[in-house]
Amino acid sequence: MSFVLKQSQKRDVHWKDVFHRLMPEMEFHFHPECGDPADVEYIAMWRPERDLFTRFPNLRLVFSLGAGVDQFDLSTFPDHVGLVKMIEPALTAGMVEYVTAYVLAAHRDLPLYRTQQMQHLWRPHTERRASTTTVGIMGMGTLGIPCAGAIRALGFNVRGWSRSPKDVEGISMFAGTGQLDDFLATTDILVSLLPLTPQTRGIFNSALFARLPTGASLINAGRGPQVVVPDLLAALDGGHLRWAILDVTDPEPLTADSPLWDHPRVIITPHIASNSHPESSAESVIDTIRAFQAGKTPAGLVNRQKCY
Amino acid sequence: MSFVLKQSQKRDVHWKDVFHRLMPEMEFHFHPECGDPADVEYIAMWRPERDLFTRFPNLRLVFSLGAGVDQFDLSTFPDHVGLVKMIEPALTAGMVEYVTAYVLAAHRDLPLYRTQQMQHLWRPHTERRASTTTVGIMGMGTLGIPCAGAIRALGFNVRGWSRSPKDVEGISMFAGTGQLDDFLATTDILVSLLPLTPQTRGIFNSALFARLPTGASLINAGRGPQVVVPDLLAALDGGHLRWAILDVTDPEPLTADSPLWDHPRVIITPHIASNSHPESSAESVIDTIRAFQAGKTPAGLVNRQKCY
Repeated sequence: MSFVLKQSQKRDVHWKDVFHRLMPEMEFHFHPECGDPADVEYIAMWRPERDLFTRFPNLRLVFSLGAGVDQFDLSTFPDHVGLVKMIEPALTAGMVEYVTAYVLAAHRDLPLYRTQQMQHLWRPHTERRASTTTVGIMGMGTLGIPCAGAIRALGFNVRGWSRSPKDVEGISMFAGTGQLDDFLATTDILVSLLPLTPQTRGIFNSALFARLPTGASLINAGRGPQVVVPDLLAALDGGHLRWAILDVTDPEPLTADSPLWDHPRVIITPHIASNSHPESSAESVIDTIRAFQAGKTPAGLVNRQKCY
Repeated sequence: MSFVLKQSQKRDVHWKDVFHRLMPEMEFHFHPECGDPADVEYIAMWRPERDLFTRFPNLRLVFSLGAGVDQFDLSTFPDHVGLVKMIEPALTAGMVEYVTAYVLAAHRDLPLYRTQQMQHLWRPHTERRASTTTVGIMGMGTLGIPCAGAIRALGFNVRGWSRSPKDVEGISMFAGTGQLDDFLATTDILVSLLPLTPQTRGIFNSALFARLPTGASLINAGRGPQVVVPDLLAALDGGHLRWAILDVTDPEPLTADSPLWDHPRVIITPHIASNSHPESSAESVIDTIRAFQAGKTPAGLVNRQKCY
């Protein structure tokens, strides 16, 4: 029984240390080294490789090193292999920080003051109160729920939208396409943490923007291909949307000639909203393996129908 | 018995409505109209006027329309007149928003990504965790305490410093000049909400910056004259300080030729961190008048020795 870690950058010894400490019975390898391929039951990676299932015939679980799993093609997975998305405290904490920072930035028009600074312009603007501002979060999973809680603690009205009905304490929840318009109608700051699926590709388009109230802002910390860029630019230029804060783009890195870079109402961050942390990731992977070995369904196991 | 409201801008009818509803027995005037000057017992204003006490001989309380009272000279106040600083929920909420937004911005290096965006540069940087970052708040009064709570809820270590010893649940507290060095030694993000007093004028100088760890940031939402600008620029240029986020300057508006405007590690906002809101301010003033009439010490009454 062995575990292989495939990292794009340098080997992170924290992973090996945590396995050695918490799961000493597991043989640990840094890819491309992997011992006997027939012993490999668990592998963690960001980008998949073509010959994964022929090379490691006894694989049980493939762990994504991030919260997203859209880089994997589940249809290529044999029935006996599960795909697990990363759920770990540092990844969650980072997303809560990012969403909180940019909800407040949009709410208080902070990017406008940055522009004014470049013009040496001291000009205060009228304040809006959080209690009369609604933040709508699309994607109420392990990241969305704590983000909703943090935003609510700051006094905002918070609503959540998810694909299937879900109860979240203290949050007005909306579900499915049937309730999407109602959800959007009063959302002043729209935060997306949606996974990339056939249903969410291109979801942020003119039709959706038109359902938001005038002056709404978009914060996308989901996936780049969910945004139809010409539609977004039209909504910003037409004055319907106020700010677009994009941590994800299509492609990544964003090409140098993209009109998004220089748009005065677009904020670009280079996919830094949240990163998994080696120690807490390793601990989470070990917990998942133990649950799996005990016959339980691991927390981050990807549903083959929903693709997330 | 009458109340006079002196506002620099247009008359805000919300004030009159709230008084009419909650304290109908009080005659309400918008300055410069004031009825019989001898009837005026309460006045609310931002900037004081010279002949205040001769013009209104029966004044009991002067209310500042902001959290700061440094624009008043307490030595000119007769013994029978009290000065009251504004304590009201909207003012507090605004400051919590501002401090939270900029602590996160400094923590996550968000202004650097804004600069990179202008260069069309997609380059992620290494993340630091909130749990290994200490935020130190100077000025732990009615604004500092809720700010500390909000920052702590995001996972930061939070410390507070106040002039006199004080206990705040869940926060390591430091007091007086004797504990200032210890407080500064581990503060990664220094937030100041200090009032302007003879003791705090020029407090942010080379000597204080040198006691902070390398890479620390300063967020000043107190008063402009507390910062020695040449010392701040030297600390930023020398690489000792990372970010300076200034909501207050000296003078205000900041002069167009100030070197602060164009410094790549300085963020200027035009004194917008927090504003009082007319309705909640009027409610707070009414509560204070009722407490005063009942012989109690009003919550925001300024101590003549401390000047805050």
